[in-house]
Formats: sequence, C-alpha cells, structure tokens
Amino acid sequence: MSDLDRVLAQVDADLDASLERLFAFLRIPSISTDRTYAEECRRAGQWLTDDLATLGLDARLNATAGHPIVTGTSHAGAARRVMFYGHYDVQPVDPLELWENPPFEPRIVESAEGVKRIVARGSSDDKGQVMTFVEACRAYVKVLGKLPVDVTIVVEGEEESGSANIGTFLASHKDELKADLALVCDTGMWDAQTPAIILSLRGLMHDEFVVRCADRDLHSGYYGGAAANPLHVISNIIGSIHGEDGRITIPGFYDGVVEPPEHVKAAWSQLDLTAENFLGPVGLSDPIGEKDRLLIEMVSTRPTFEVNGLWGGYIGEGAKTVIPSIATAKISCRLVADQDPAHVRDVVRAYIRSKLPADCTVEFLGGEGSRAVAVAHDNPLLARAAAALGDEWGAPAVTYGEGGSIPIVGQFKKVLGQDTLLVGFALDDDRIHSPNEKYDLASFHKGIRSWVRILAALAE
Amino acid sequence: MSDLDRVLAQVDADLDASLERLFAFLRIPSISTDRTYAEECRRAGQWLTDDLATLGLDARLNATAGHPIVTGTSHAGAARRVMFYGHYDVQPVDPLELWENPPFEPRIVESAEGVKRIVARGSSDDKGQVMTFVEACRAYVKVLGKLPVDVTIVVEGEEESGSANIGTFLASHKDELKADLALVCDTGMWDAQTPAIILSLRGLMHDEFVVRCADRDLHSGYYGGAAANPLHVISNIIGSIHGEDGRITIPGFYDGVVEPPEHVKAAWSQLDLTAENFLGPVGLSDPIGEKDRLLIEMVSTRPTFEVNGLWGGYIGEGAKTVIPSIATAKISCRLVADQDPAHVRDVVRAYIRSKLPADCTVEFLGGEGSRAVAVAHDNPLLARAAAALGDEWGAPAVTYGEGGSIPIVGQFKKVLGQDTLLVGFALDDDRIHSPNEKYDLASFHKGIRSWVRILAALAE
Repeated sequence: MSDLDRVLAQVDADLDASLERLFAFLRIPSISTDRTYAEECRRAGQWLTDDLATLGLDARLNATAGHPIVTGTSHAGAARRVMFYGHYDVQPVDPLELWENPPFEPRIVESAEGVKRIVARGSSDDKGQVMTFVEACRAYVKVLGKLPVDVTIVVEGEEESGSANIGTFLASHKDELKADLALVCDTGMWDAQTPAIILSLRGLMHDEFVVRCADRDLHSGYYGGAAANPLHVISNIIGSIHGEDGRITIPGFYDGVVEPPEHVKAAWSQLDLTAENFLGPVGLSDPIGEKDRLLIEMVSTRPTFEVNGLWGGYIGEGAKTVIPSIATAKISCRLVADQDPAHVRDVVRAYIRSKLPADCTVEFLGGEGSRAVAVAHDNPLLARAAAALGDEWGAPAVTYGEGGSIPIVGQFKKVLGQDTLLVGFALDDDRIHSPNEKYDLASFHKGIRSWVRILAALAE
Repeated sequence: MSDLDRVLAQVDADLDASLERLFAFLRIPSISTDRTYAEECRRAGQWLTDDLATLGLDARLNATAGHPIVTGTSHAGAARRVMFYGHYDVQPVDPLELWENPPFEPRIVESAEGVKRIVARGSSDDKGQVMTFVEACRAYVKVLGKLPVDVTIVVEGEEESGSANIGTFLASHKDELKADLALVCDTGMWDAQTPAIILSLRGLMHDEFVVRCADRDLHSGYYGGAAANPLHVISNIIGSIHGEDGRITIPGFYDGVVEPPEHVKAAWSQLDLTAENFLGPVGLSDPIGEKDRLLIEMVSTRPTFEVNGLWGGYIGEGAKTVIPSIATAKISCRLVADQDPAHVRDVVRAYIRSKLPADCTVEFLGGEGSRAVAVAHDNPLLARAAAALGDEWGAPAVTYGEGGSIPIVGQFKKVLGQDTLLVGFALDDDRIHSPNEKYDLASFHKGIRSWVRILAALAE
C-alpha cells in the first residue's frame, strides 16, 4: 500500500472524528458583521488555533484592529510551501424563522434522494471547506508524521464583513507568508460529480453618479415640455450603454480584455451550461450578453456594466406631477483579464459626461475597484492539481473562470507574488448566506481526500 | 359720468373697506388638508356666505361629505348669467418658521421697490382673487342697485385637498348652476403690467409601470453578463421615448393634437417669453421640447411625457452588487386639444410592451386621466373680456394656454355645458403654497376694477 493510499485510508477511518471536530467549530456563532458576536469570533479563532497546534504547526491567534487572524505554519523543510487561505467567520442567520433546525446546532440530515448533508450556518461557507484542508493535513501527520509540502495556513475572521484587516496583515507579514502557491477553498464544484478549478475571478469597479438639472424640483404643468428631466437624462445614458448586440458601447471599455486560448474555448463549448439550466431556475430564459459569446464567457471572462440601484423623483404612494432636480445611479462593472479599474472608471465617467445635455451636471461618488485575477493556463502546478482531482472524483476537473470577485486573491499576487489555486467542494444548492445552509457529506469527505491527493501532487 | 365710471369710482372709494373684509376672510385658517382645521373651514365658508347675503344674493352654505360649498345666486332677470368659481380653502403653512409674519395675521407690507403687498396665507390663492369678484359685485349693487349680468357664485373648500365633492355637487345641482359662461379667478397675469386670459389648460394622464425580470434579486458576479437587468430595460424604454428632435416617439401619441391658428402663433412669437427669463430662474437655459416649436407652445399647447419617479435595486449607503428583479416608474403626460386620456394610456402601454425583452413582464398601476380644456379662440365673450382687461390695464390682454391642469374646468364643460373664462391677477412671485404668500395691492384693486369692466362687457 502506497503512502498516499495509507493516508486516504486514514481519512476514511477518521471521518466520524473529523465530523465531530467540524461540528464543534460550527457550534461557535462567529458572525463577524455583528459586534455583539465579537467574543464568539475570537472563540472560533482560538478553537482553530488550538486545533492547528495539535497538528504540530506553529499556531497563532494574531490580533488585528478587528477580529483576529489564525495562522498555522509547518517547518518541515519540504521542497515546496503552499499558503492556504480561508475564513472562520460566518454570515448572519436572519431570517431565523426559516431555519428548520437552529443554525448553530449542526446535524446530518438525509435528503429525500438519500444524500447526507451537514446542515448549519458555516457548514459550506467556509468552516466546512477550511476543515477539508485541515483534516487532510491531520491524516498526513497521523500516518507519515509529516506533511508532503510545507504549509502556511491563514484563516481570517472578517471575510463576510469586508476583510478590512487581512490586507494590512499580509503586507506586514509578507516574508513569513511567502509560498510557492496560494490555495483557497471557498469556491464550488462544477456539479455534484465534477470537480472544478477556478482559473480566474472577475474584478470589480463600482461608482455612483448623480445627475442634476434644474436647481429645484419643478411643477410638471408649468415647466413640463421645456425643462430638462434628470430621470430622462439618466435613462438615456443607461439605455445607450448596451448595444443591440449586447456589447458595451463605452469607448475604451474593453481595453485590456483578452481572449482565452482556442483550446480552452473549445473545451467550454462542450460544457453543459445552457440558458435553460443556468437561467431557468431564476425565471429567465434568454442570456442578454454579447450575441457571439458562449454563456460561460458572458458570466466569467467578459466584463459587465450593471446598474445596481437607480432612483429619483417621487417614489411614494400615488401620483405627484413633479419634474425632479436630481437622479442617481449606483453602477458596478465586473472586470476581466488586464482591465484596469481606474481606466474603466475614467472611460465610464467620460462617456457619461459626453452624453450629458448642456444644462445638466454630474457628480461621481465612488470609483473604487479591484483587478481581475487569473491563474496562468499553463501553470504546471495547475495541471497536477487537476489530475489529482480527476483521480479522486473519477471525472476530469473542469477549469473555468468565475464571475464573482474575491479581492484578497489579487493581494496574494500583488503583495506576496504568488499565484492562487481556487479549489472548492461547495455546490450551487448549498444555500450559503441563506437559511438552512448545508454542505454535502460527500463534499466534506471527498474534499479531504482531494486535498490529500493535491498535496501529494504538489510535492512531486 | 357713465354708470361704469361711477361703479369704478365706488371701487376706488371703498378700497380700504374692501381690504378690511379681505383681511377678516384671511384671518380664518381654513386649511382643508388637515382635519383639525375642519371647523375653521366651515367658519370661512360661513363668513363668505354671510358676506354674499349682504349683496342681496340667495346665499347658502351647502353641506357635502367634506367641507361645505358656498353658493350665492342673483335673480335679477338679466339677459345673461355667469357662474363664478373659486375656493376658500388654503394650503398648509409649513414650514412656519420661514414666515416673516404669522400667516393668518394679514398686513400690508411695502417692498424695497415701494410695491404694496397683502401678505398672508390665501392672499393670492385664492381668497384675494375670489374677493376681487365679490367686491366688483358689491360696487355694482351699491351704485346701481343691481348686477349687469346674473351671477351664480360657487366657492368650494376642498380645492387644495383634491376637490373630492365639487363634481358630485355640480352634477346634482346642474339646473340651478347652469350659466352662459363660467368665470374662474385662480390664474395669473402675464406680468405685473399685462393682463392675461388663459385659453386652455392641459389635461393629464398618469400611470405607473413595474418591470420584472428574474424572479428574485441576483448576485451580479454570478449572473452578471447573462441575466436581464430591469433597470437597464426600464432605462432603455424611457430613453427611447424622446427623439433627438424632442418629439415623443410613441406611435399614436399625438392623435388629437391640433395646431393653434396661424394668427395666434404669430402673436405668441411676439411674446417676451425666452429661455433666459423662463428657465433662467430655475438654473436652466436650454428648452428640451420639440426643436421647431416656440417655448410658449412647449409648455402649453404641446403634450408631454414625463417620468415623475423612478426606482429599483439598492438605494442605500455604499455599494451592493445586485441585479434587482424589479424596476418601477411613475409617469405622467400633459395632454392638449382633443387628446383622449384613455387613448394616450393605451398607446403608451402598447409602446412599453413592444420594447420589453421576452424575459420581462410589465404591470401597470394607474392610467387615470382628464382631458385638456380650451375656450374657442373665436368665442365672442372672450374678445369682450380681453378688451375690458385692456381698458383697465392699458395693455392688451395676452391670451395663451397654461401648462397645468384644473380638472374641475373640464367638468364645467362636461356637466354644465359651459365654456370657462380664466382670468386672474396673481403674479409669478406670489409664493402660493410657500411661506410669505402675497398678493400685490394693485392685483387686488385693479382686479376688482377689471371684473367691473368685464361684467359690463359681458352684459352687452
């Protein structure tokens, strides 16, 4: 029996104990957004620190201006070091009345189809995913007395509340956090049978703009027909941003967008991602992106311009015949590849200014952004991890871009100079951020086994 | 000395007493929107009823489901009868702290330029204007013992709160209210030296529409680029309604719009109504109406499509990366000439439906409307009234359309079958509905004299 097989057998044999440890972690209501749970956050961090110490790691609970950051570092002198990132804080539980069981009393619930699920707040996002990695390390230490690669585990307590302090922590500890590769377990599988590696995350630029016309609200009888209406102006601007072909018409918007290699696009065209199975569950049927693009491109490797909020004039009950003086829009753009958030902000603002009638003014409030992040398609560690995942799940790992943004991943590259491998075992139906959050028992068990295989592959 | 000159001399001689009566009327805080002032409204109605009785009119305070309606009817057997309409209720006084004197303690205040003004809530809108007509009648009765035409005075107490009961009252008393012409004194002068007759009032159709796309709010990272955004859809619709030339693009929207006679348009082109003096005071400079139209047309004889309120998505502090599921707009159209509100509602709704992507639905909430009203340009009574005003003010009366709507005027035509002559002496700077409302002493004095002349002219 190979070392790898012995470690995998240890994972299987120890599963009940692994679950007990996860349940203990899940029982701590570490809600980071609510200051009344600050002590519970600290307690969750302390629990994890103590657990990492049992693996022989140099484990610390590092104070920050907010909730503490857990670190656990091995010093085995291995040829390669990986930095694992996750978070121990969880989302609030409202509305509590929709939970079938109390959110911090984890239990195994069997679905109508016979699927066993760990149900609790944080079971998937992110305590369950973090513990897949920790338990994989535990199995190595138990069987072989050491890890195949050196690890630096970093688990923060503020991911659900804006990650205010992790950036400073990375910068001030960059020498000790330096690794060959970062690993993040906060994403999902392609489907319940197919593992996935996220190759890219979109960046984000958000802004807010306020259009003003007259210097006061006007009576629409007296002035109507002559006075500029900022609701018309703002609608006209927003309505002109997407062409009939779905493309964004703002000059310079696509600067820095690159095409994925042909073989990657060819693989994507084989994926079972259809309008029916992607949009159908939310009541839609027709993708509104660029007409010549695959759906997977629209939501991952193509940038977007989205209005997230829009308001002006009278929004109460009944009618009011007013021409308002102000209209406001909150917008955000998902960014890809080498798009520069500052450049996107500038071209968007220039476009809006160019569409403004002479009588109107615009003010911008915002404009912050983060770049997209990507793993090089040809990174050899990526190929090894994909093969390891394929061995565990019996299906090749799908590699694709995810549409959302995890700004901290950009910091790993910028501050620490390391690429990130995003591997996770969550499923679309895990109800993260919602009542009755769950993590399939298979996600947990095979997730641990997956990390065992990936760590072995990365050690080669 | 002619009868007319004797009556005018009586007006001049009685001015101080006329002011005393007006002040007594103004001291009653008849705020109709606030139920705590219900007894004050009744008291104002009773005061006016008693005053009309002193003119020898058959004066009544008619109970309604709301505030009572005052009527005063003469039975002199004159060849012609006019129905005068006004209102004794006033707007609330908030914000009280901005009043330089208590709103219900009327006084004469001299402006820096030496202009004497009656300052009080209701001085202009509408107690002061109502009393110009009553005092004109009083002078006739005092000097000649009778009125030159028979009058039916109707003064309601709910104009500022929606005129809920006047329509029913008109319908149930139509035989006794029937007259050759209705007179309304609730409008303004062209400027402080130039009298005006309002030839038309625009109608109004208001509606609200709700666009729905996905069946829930979506995360803009996961779905952004594929899922329809109702804020884009609603902006696209609104942004398409006005063409580059300022015309409304909705098919059928202009059905029923007619051109004023050439000589009327020629007269309007001579009016001193410029973008600078009309839009300048509210911080605008560029009329947004149809490019080939006079400004006076844009705001009076041309219809409008206006968004009065618009909202959707996240409108709180900061950013939220949401694709909302719902967007809502409140709209209203000012109508002119023979435009049918129901037809306008239908073509607007059809247009909105035609612009809706397949995945989206729209729901309409509203669609009520009232037609525009107009006095025939060739009504001979109109010409006589205009000449009488010219005699008083030494400047020809400007005749034009007003952009706002007074729905009750449509009822005079529809229920009673009579045209309406809209003559008033308010000025743009009267601050009606605002603190420190005023009515120039000249508006009051020459207003009384104007009605003396108009009644004489209508008797011919």
